[in-house]
Amino acid sequence: MSVAPIDKLVVVGVGLIGGSFALALREQHLVKQVIGIGRSRENLEAALRVGIIDATADRHDAVRDADLVFVATPVAQMAGVLKRIAPHLSEHSIVTDGGSTKQDVIAAARQALGMRFSRFVPGHPIAGTENSGAAAAFATLFRERKVVLTPDADTDRAAIKRVADLWHACGAEVRQMPAARHDAIFAAVSHLPHVLAFALVEELASRPEAEEFFAYAASGFRDFTRIAASDPEMWRDVCLANRESLRVELTRYRAKIERIDALLAHGDGASLEQLFEAASEARRAWQANLQ
Amino acid sequence: MSVAPIDKLVVVGVGLIGGSFALALREQHLVKQVIGIGRSRENLEAALRVGIIDATADRHDAVRDADLVFVATPVAQMAGVLKRIAPHLSEHSIVTDGGSTKQDVIAAARQALGMRFSRFVPGHPIAGTENSGAAAAFATLFRERKVVLTPDADTDRAAIKRVADLWHACGAEVRQMPAARHDAIFAAVSHLPHVLAFALVEELASRPEAEEFFAYAASGFRDFTRIAASDPEMWRDVCLANRESLRVELTRYRAKIERIDALLAHGDGASLEQLFEAASEARRAWQANLQ
Repeated sequence: MSVAPIDKLVVVGVGLIGGSFALALREQHLVKQVIGIGRSRENLEAALRVGIIDATADRHDAVRDADLVFVATPVAQMAGVLKRIAPHLSEHSIVTDGGSTKQDVIAAARQALGMRFSRFVPGHPIAGTENSGAAAAFATLFRERKVVLTPDADTDRAAIKRVADLWHACGAEVRQMPAARHDAIFAAVSHLPHVLAFALVEELASRPEAEEFFAYAASGFRDFTRIAASDPEMWRDVCLANRESLRVELTRYRAKIERIDALLAHGDGASLEQLFEAASEARRAWQANLQ
Repeated sequence: MSVAPIDKLVVVGVGLIGGSFALALREQHLVKQVIGIGRSRENLEAALRVGIIDATADRHDAVRDADLVFVATPVAQMAGVLKRIAPHLSEHSIVTDGGSTKQDVIAAARQALGMRFSRFVPGHPIAGTENSGAAAAFATLFRERKVVLTPDADTDRAAIKRVADLWHACGAEVRQMPAARHDAIFAAVSHLPHVLAFALVEELASRPEAEEFFAYAASGFRDFTRIAASDPEMWRDVCLANRESLRVELTRYRAKIERIDALLAHGDGASLEQLFEAASEARRAWQANLQ
């Protein structure tokens, strides 16, 4: 598969995702010029220093003549960003995003981009670490990771193909599904676990004896809570943007732990073991499938 | 520190913990003979094959003349094991255990061992992986890990010192605290996270669309749920043995996620971010402290 290089890529939000996308395309010689736009001067300068971007821009008219604009800000900022870039987009520009929620971003894009909405390809790279900012970016972040595109009925097919080809070139596996399905799935397998991990660490940290408790936390705790170190702003936005699906998941989860509490109260070891066994088997099967 | 070698070590329950303890002592040339007792012939034979034990024993009178008996079965079996070995213990024998809960084990030991109770040193090595059985054992499991001893007022001081010295020799850092404190701390930093991880995986696995959901689970999910692959029987026993402390933790945790749900319902982004921020900072501080 031969993919045509991008003459001009504009990344809005040069963090872990936006920065890694630029680095991955550079590594494949698939981009000639990368312009970075962002809120933090310090972060943009870091991105310049490590060669993620060639130049920074203060104003959103920097998207003029861009072949591709990648919006990789926290999702709550996307409506504003899309509004500001809309008047400066060229006919041939494709806009895509890296947001973890899709229905809200699509609604914002439809409103902000008007007749250019068909050139907006909603996307979500399923990759990340608990670190954020340009300094955390690396070219291989998306290798063997999934990228989910959630195009609308109105989305231009050539634009979808172009974005899919570029993600392929970054090493990713590209899938398509409706945005509502995407949001339901990720509420369960990503947003809920993040909330649960944040909740546990905040609960323990808020206690007077926190230090002693943390001193005895071991590798199980370490892995379980790794995602609790994630970017608070990003996750605030994700949780609010996808709160309907997330609240459905929280309700189910609460019912599950209430059931476990009842089993403990009744000393029902057989049912407890059965539940743990089902989890253990499913988790082992999932892991085996990965390899 | 020079530690005298053990002439005869009996390990009851030659799994990840029991097996690794034997291997660590062997590596330090601190044990001459290791006898394994266990429920599963297959597991004992695996332990023989890989050189964890020198011989197996079917009967609990194999503890006769043992310098040290290490009981590393799931905690619910310890009462029975201690009862069976009690009549065969020698005057000089020390008995210790590797159970994840301590108040229940101490109560069982007091009842089973009678006048030999003072030679029982309750212990909990804070180490493990999600794998179990002799095949999962390795000599370095306890290096730079904590081992908590929770001796009673009646526990013989020389016996405590002997057990502490042996754990030191395995590379562990030894701490002492009251059993009730131990159980409260581990309910929060270990037993609760295990229950939460089991609950999430079982909840998702029980749905008709489980396969599709699991297909999109990524590295955050992987780490969060690693402990959900743990041994169901062991965790059933731990949860039941420590259910009072665990239920206190579950109640607090439910209140926390109900609070998060209310913040989502009210769209209170500022409070949500504050909560996530407190978690993220505490998690980062904890990790930094480890290194």
